[in-house]
Amino acid sequence: MKKSYLEMSAAELQAELEIVKKEYGELKAQGLSIDMSRGKPGADQLDISDGMLSVLDDGNFKCENGLDVRNYGILDGIPEAKKMFADLLEVKPENIIVGGNSSLSMMFDYVSQCMYNGAGFEPWSKQGTVKFLCPVPGYDRHFAICQFFGIEMINIPMTSEGPDMDAIEEALKDKAVKGMFCVPKYSNPQGITFSADTVKRIANLDVPADFRIIWDNAYCVHDLTDTTDELLNIFDVLPEKNKNMVVEVASTSKISYPGAGVACLASSVENIKEILKRLTIQSISYDKVNMLRHVRFFKNLDGIKAHMKLHAKILKPKFDAVIKTLNSDLAGLGIAEWNEPNGGYFISLDVTGGSASRVGVLCKEAGVTLTNVGATFPYGKDPTDSNIRIAPTFPTPAVLSQAVKVLTTSVRLACLENLVK
Amino acid sequence: MKKSYLEMSAAELQAELEIVKKEYGELKAQGLSIDMSRGKPGADQLDISDGMLSVLDDGNFKCENGLDVRNYGILDGIPEAKKMFADLLEVKPENIIVGGNSSLSMMFDYVSQCMYNGAGFEPWSKQGTVKFLCPVPGYDRHFAICQFFGIEMINIPMTSEGPDMDAIEEALKDKAVKGMFCVPKYSNPQGITFSADTVKRIANLDVPADFRIIWDNAYCVHDLTDTTDELLNIFDVLPEKNKNMVVEVASTSKISYPGAGVACLASSVENIKEILKRLTIQSISYDKVNMLRHVRFFKNLDGIKAHMKLHAKILKPKFDAVIKTLNSDLAGLGIAEWNEPNGGYFISLDVTGGSASRVGVLCKEAGVTLTNVGATFPYGKDPTDSNIRIAPTFPTPAVLSQAVKVLTTSVRLACLENLVK
Repeated sequence: MKKSYLEMSAAELQAELEIVKKEYGELKAQGLSIDMSRGKPGADQLDISDGMLSVLDDGNFKCENGLDVRNYGILDGIPEAKKMFADLLEVKPENIIVGGNSSLSMMFDYVSQCMYNGAGFEPWSKQGTVKFLCPVPGYDRHFAICQFFGIEMINIPMTSEGPDMDAIEEALKDKAVKGMFCVPKYSNPQGITFSADTVKRIANLDVPADFRIIWDNAYCVHDLTDTTDELLNIFDVLPEKNKNMVVEVASTSKISYPGAGVACLASSVENIKEILKRLTIQSISYDKVNMLRHVRFFKNLDGIKAHMKLHAKILKPKFDAVIKTLNSDLAGLGIAEWNEPNGGYFISLDVTGGSASRVGVLCKEAGVTLTNVGATFPYGKDPTDSNIRIAPTFPTPAVLSQAVKVLTTSVRLACLENLVK
Repeated sequence: MKKSYLEMSAAELQAELEIVKKEYGELKAQGLSIDMSRGKPGADQLDISDGMLSVLDDGNFKCENGLDVRNYGILDGIPEAKKMFADLLEVKPENIIVGGNSSLSMMFDYVSQCMYNGAGFEPWSKQGTVKFLCPVPGYDRHFAICQFFGIEMINIPMTSEGPDMDAIEEALKDKAVKGMFCVPKYSNPQGITFSADTVKRIANLDVPADFRIIWDNAYCVHDLTDTTDELLNIFDVLPEKNKNMVVEVASTSKISYPGAGVACLASSVENIKEILKRLTIQSISYDKVNMLRHVRFFKNLDGIKAHMKLHAKILKPKFDAVIKTLNSDLAGLGIAEWNEPNGGYFISLDVTGGSASRVGVLCKEAGVTLTNVGATFPYGKDPTDSNIRIAPTFPTPAVLSQAVKVLTTSVRLACLENLVK
């Protein structure tokens, strides 16, 4: 174990700073150009789904109910796709709308409807100020949706069990709070799965009838190892009074293709009905050919799970490369903490002393682009300037090791600059 | 030429009524079940695009700028798709956003943005009552969007040259009028193409800076004959003061697949920028694999035009079958008028004496489902109960002849019932 920077004398810190400066200079001199900003699959991951693109070559375009998927019709998804996604999210087909290529759009459109048109209740915007709870660190695009619609965001700290439920219950005393975004499994960026107790406490929250939780289950089957996290199905524990509280979304963006997958939404029959009232005006139907392509290729949930093992095989060495370098370079220094997730797309790194922004700058100057520091918080403002999201999926393991070396060196340098001051 | 019903004596009308009653009874006894409610391509039309589904079998997923279309990235469409749709709509690629499978969604989302979030101006909903001009008869889904957002609709009569421009200029004295939906080429349902003078008058309207025309060019290349209508490119004649007035949409719904085509939107660079501000929050990207599929299959505008000739070959006999029966059964009776369009998806039939609803009922009872009578007007209310939309594309010509025979017989019966009263 290395000596903690926090236990070093001023002279030791100064000496270490000189060493790290030199190391950083050498890394910078390599002229790297590595983009680790997005949770983006690598090309090898995309390749494993390519069989899907010829699965309709037999010219059979009829879905189970006899409809030609190439033509108009069916707003909530073809029956076999509804079934497959219902199995994925452990609900009934009647609780499912199969969407287009973006669960983000399904969330955006739903929040828009809640705000301005209502979804079985008086539109939020007509009730005054609207606020949302935001577990942090979290997903920047959730925060962006809130910001776009002028929804005020309240930070809720994450714990290893999920969002701090005491903080949520306290925040809910404010009746302007109308909802919450969250990623309940392998959360973005920490890879935390909400514990059963947390899910139960969320299910039983004392909230008004028009309070909505957007349960973004983006990583529902995105395990990396055989030690998988289990997420309690929140619909199974929702009390009658909160039966319309949860709107779950997922997609195949990181199962098949990010650009051309299929998204889905699950909720109460009542909510589905309200959403369809909008959809019938907004669209003629989502892309049913692509739905059929996905069902014919994956066949069923087992097919999806088998496919996810192929992804894991590609991704696990990348996560391992990051964790290994973090361990070897930062363990024991007392300046950083990180998680070792069992799934998802990210590793979250917390650095001490408000030095995350400085780390971002140092990485950038040495040719490594991280997710914008601060992006994991509402309004892009990390109050303690500590969180860094590592997205290890796109670069190769070799490139990744180089990039993380730049990262750990930058972390050491930034923290030393602070400590030496 | 038959004798006009309007010139018949009471006794002649009574005799004719008996004959037509008998004919109608015989048709009804056939127990037909024909759906002519939607402008839906036939399966043979869908088949001609099936080559598209294997066009990516070579595994080349790189678009012109090197991006892998299967992955994240590019919000406004891949470059080659932007170019192809720019050529289609006679604008520059910088004026194009390539969308998902639905131009209806692009319109809905844009109107929603204008209403609540603004698109370079104070949101309409914050300015008080919002009204739209609606050329009638028109497309029911345009009206449905207005109704969904609480936009009041003002009927503007269509002429053979397009909407009545005097009526539009008069209506615009009301400053609550913020926009207009229209189908400028082969209009739905009349198949009318706006004349060059009409387009110029529209372009030069005296309107506020946030007035928007949704120029739904759904049938831009949907010619049926070699005698094609020409639509003046409105962007070419827009004066500087109205440079942001027009938002044009189109799609391949009736070029490739209604369920799985590609939509596009064209407007000023300023408008495109405002729309992208929303899209960057609403979506990760539209389906770029499907964009590439379309470009690789059609190659360019010439490819699209050649493809449309294949559609015309299938559709022309259907339109001819309708027109022929209308001519043989109704010409000279003085009770109905119809158009013979050079393109588009519909034939519009106007009957006298407020009998259109009755015709709808009679057809339904005899097993022929028409588009809901009234649907071609805002709020589903045809003030003179005269317009019937005929959608001849889906049934075969033989079935179509049967269906139109039921229609013409119902028209005669309904009008005679009125005249004999």
